Amino acid sequence: MNIQVEKDRKIIRNEAFIKKAEELKPSLKTEVAKPIHLVKTIEDKDIIHGWKCVEIEPAVNLVEKDFKKGESFIVDFGKHQVGYLSMRVRPVGSPPDAPLHMRLTFGEMPVEVSVPFSDYNGWISSSWLQEETIHVDVLPGTVSFPRRYSFRYLKVEILDTSVKYNVAFDEVTCETVTSADSSTLTELHHHDRELQQIDAVSIKTLEDCMQDVFEDGPKRDRRLWLGDLRLQALANYETFKNNDLVKRCLYLFAGVPNDQGQVSANLFIAPTLVPDDTYLYDYSLFFTTTLYDYFQATNDRETLEELWPIAYRQVELALEKLNDRGIVEDSPTWWSFIDWHEELNKQGPSQAILIYALKRTITLAEILVDNKKSFLEKKLTEVVDSSIQHLWDEQQGFFVSGETRQVSWASQVWMVLAQVLSQKENKKLMKRLLEQNPTIGMNTPYMYHHLVEALLLIEEKEKAIDMLKTYWGGMIKDGADTFWELYNPNDKAYSPYGSYLINSYCHAWSCTPTYLIRKYDL
Amino acid sequence: MNIQVEKDRKIIRNEAFIKKAEELKPSLKTEVAKPIHLVKTIEDKDIIHGWKCVEIEPAVNLVEKDFKKGESFIVDFGKHQVGYLSMRVRPVGSPPDAPLHMRLTFGEMPVEVSVPFSDYNGWISSSWLQEETIHVDVLPGTVSFPRRYSFRYLKVEILDTSVKYNVAFDEVTCETVTSADSSTLTELHHHDRELQQIDAVSIKTLEDCMQDVFEDGPKRDRRLWLGDLRLQALANYETFKNNDLVKRCLYLFAGVPNDQGQVSANLFIAPTLVPDDTYLYDYSLFFTTTLYDYFQATNDRETLEELWPIAYRQVELALEKLNDRGIVEDSPTWWSFIDWHEELNKQGPSQAILIYALKRTITLAEILVDNKKSFLEKKLTEVVDSSIQHLWDEQQGFFVSGETRQVSWASQVWMVLAQVLSQKENKKLMKRLLEQNPTIGMNTPYMYHHLVEALLLIEEKEKAIDMLKTYWGGMIKDGADTFWELYNPNDKAYSPYGSYLINSYCHAWSCTPTYLIRKYDL
Repeated sequence: MNIQVEKDRKIIRNEAFIKKAEELKPSLKTEVAKPIHLVKTIEDKDIIHGWKCVEIEPAVNLVEKDFKKGESFIVDFGKHQVGYLSMRVRPVGSPPDAPLHMRLTFGEMPVEVSVPFSDYNGWISSSWLQEETIHVDVLPGTVSFPRRYSFRYLKVEILDTSVKYNVAFDEVTCETVTSADSSTLTELHHHDRELQQIDAVSIKTLEDCMQDVFEDGPKRDRRLWLGDLRLQALANYETFKNNDLVKRCLYLFAGVPNDQGQVSANLFIAPTLVPDDTYLYDYSLFFTTTLYDYFQATNDRETLEELWPIAYRQVELALEKLNDRGIVEDSPTWWSFIDWHEELNKQGPSQAILIYALKRTITLAEILVDNKKSFLEKKLTEVVDSSIQHLWDEQQGFFVSGETRQVSWASQVWMVLAQVLSQKENKKLMKRLLEQNPTIGMNTPYMYHHLVEALLLIEEKEKAIDMLKTYWGGMIKDGADTFWELYNPNDKAYSPYGSYLINSYCHAWSCTPTYLIRKYDL
Repeated sequence: MNIQVEKDRKIIRNEAFIKKAEELKPSLKTEVAKPIHLVKTIEDKDIIHGWKCVEIEPAVNLVEKDFKKGESFIVDFGKHQVGYLSMRVRPVGSPPDAPLHMRLTFGEMPVEVSVPFSDYNGWISSSWLQEETIHVDVLPGTVSFPRRYSFRYLKVEILDTSVKYNVAFDEVTCETVTSADSSTLTELHHHDRELQQIDAVSIKTLEDCMQDVFEDGPKRDRRLWLGDLRLQALANYETFKNNDLVKRCLYLFAGVPNDQGQVSANLFIAPTLVPDDTYLYDYSLFFTTTLYDYFQATNDRETLEELWPIAYRQVELALEKLNDRGIVEDSPTWWSFIDWHEELNKQGPSQAILIYALKRTITLAEILVDNKKSFLEKKLTEVVDSSIQHLWDEQQGFFVSGETRQVSWASQVWMVLAQVLSQKENKKLMKRLLEQNPTIGMNTPYMYHHLVEALLLIEEKEKAIDMLKTYWGGMIKDGADTFWELYNPNDKAYSPYGSYLINSYCHAWSCTPTYLIRKYDL
């Protein structure tokens, strides 16, 4: 269980920044989605999570059926939806002499509408499981659910009516919401249908995560996280180009740093803007690199100038974490994110991310003609040197991390992305990594994204495409119509939370293939 | 399980009557109630239903407490409430990184917030059990519940928050609703404090049942039933004097008779006016006697004239049920209500109610100078004669009912109320009834009301007062602050529905002591 709790932190609110962010709040686009099929789910050991969905008949047939106490049905909306459910419910038989009591269960995956949520025993809150138990006093009537759901499958269970009436469902609809504007999209028309499909699923994933802010997952946990924002922004520049939404999110983070000037790892937007009391080494640095990416995409110098001090401050604070050997001080887990991996030591990859960020900060300083540039360049040299000196294990040919000198995929991938070694050495390192396959592997599309980008950086385009097809294509083969938060092809039940029921199956940080395909012209 | 289902009935809507009823729709008065105590419930075999409520501390202390997953609390609002709950919920700890999931259970009685509703196995719908399970996505915030509840006790169970925060409850309120106007009330100032208290609890019961219509019970089943309306109207004339509400209810019944002209036993008001497909011999006749009582209280001749045809029609239809011996045709259960009693034969009391209604109908015909009077008088003579001839058992000194010649309390009480015998004979009959105590007794305050009124009719005022104190006073001793739907002092777990969890503990037909005390000057 990885959490940070800071009881006495101070937040320095920048109301001008918050106001600017508020002014950039997007209006949401809505559409009405309807279920396509009545389905059932059946157990199948060969399917991910052990449950598959089987079509029974078209969902339009639902109107002809009625249900009594103890009966239930499942509808499939055909694809992933994020929005608000409404249903028109009608009594069948005598006038309804008691309320209707029913349970609705929303599933992004078939397993969610197949096993009882009472089975859940993970460590993050069960309140994320999408289920409602409601009473309807007045029938016939339209029941509109006030909460937003993220789902493809909807199970409706009739807990009770009365002996005098059954219920029928005349209309079930979902009013979908997104701040992504599909009309801005350019279709890919890729000769490789697999990449075409991966691109489409990436875009759908991004679209469903684009709401008031870039959310990490519309099912869970719906927050604006810096690590996700960075990747969503990259995918957005290649697709929806809603650059104001990136700008808004940058101003939100900049609006509520702590009294050290550090931006939080994530923000709560409602009822008021509140930064989480979680601060992550890598995520704070990603504020700076996200601003860098934003400027590259938009050339918006005004925003760059305004946010530069806080972007620079993240680097300063990161440099303060260097020990006397010039290496990022290691700490217990959850001080830097890198990947969901219980055994992963974060020092090596964090050191690499510092270098990665320093290089981009130097570029920004150059653009702004800021005299901090020389200081940053000096620091970069020092940090690169100490990385080579203390983290590069010449004998193994790998970067190591932490006291145990752990060799992980994450360390190598990030050191390549940070371009600590020469291009030639990086190529060798990546080859070695793929061949030797160190046991400390990767669990998230987030980390796989960095692996693919590292392969592209060393011009291993074919290997990158193979990885895209194996990993994201593997998700599609396993049933994804939006990309998942977690996917370990060797352990498909993997969840860092203790249960895959609570995993998010439409997750921001998994939307990057569209960026990789389009940016690198794969 | 007693239900009627009529599949192909026709309703003849009288839109002018329905419009008149709509125009008389009352505006509801609201007040804000707050909990008085934090309480716990503990098992106690000597208490009704086995659970008693114990005060822990003042409810104002709630604001200082916070609750984590698995914790719960119970508040006592001090008296029965009917209204809408709101609560201001605040996170304690880190910003809430997951929704709050909680269950609310509303109880009119301590048992309802003590045993899990999953224990319920009665035959009427479990959907009446007042429980909500909700998710709150945005905290802090005010949660307002859209459904109306009827309760004194509220249990709040925290199903989940997250490991990072607890929840606190800054304010819990109930906006109460009633169409009764307390300012019209005259206080009783009775020298007998017990009667004073019984009067007060009666009025509170009536008040909580007075909504858009006279409901039978604000917890369950919230409908306008003719049997309840009749008694509520009588209590209302002595207390709130909201005579327009009685008028509205009469017009509602008159607005939707079936194609025979019979009014339904009860009505659904929302979403549109619909009569239930339940028709009861006694209840239809009570339309006529309720109109009689209304005219006595108001002298509203216009309404009497307008509703007279449908009132008269109920009597005509009732007379059609007479067999060739001039006795109401017996049928399987649930054709006439009389009382909740599985073994009670309904013929005898129904015959008495026909006579009771005929006498009042004759008075109405006289007032209206309607020539149907002579026909009614002729019928009355016939029906009284055949009652004496076929139902009066001279040897036993009791009226009998049905093929098995059942001797019940209900038959005797109603025959006395119908004044079939002379006053002298009635006195003897009631004495015999009380002494011999036939096994087919009474289960509801509804039937006990008629017993008390029968005692008052034969001028046994002391016995009537004793009965009020024993029965309604007994409920108060057992914890009632509104009078209950069901109360059998010899079987306090009695429920006609299979579980006392679903009984209504604020029930219209139990509100009559105020009428009896005030009307008969007890």
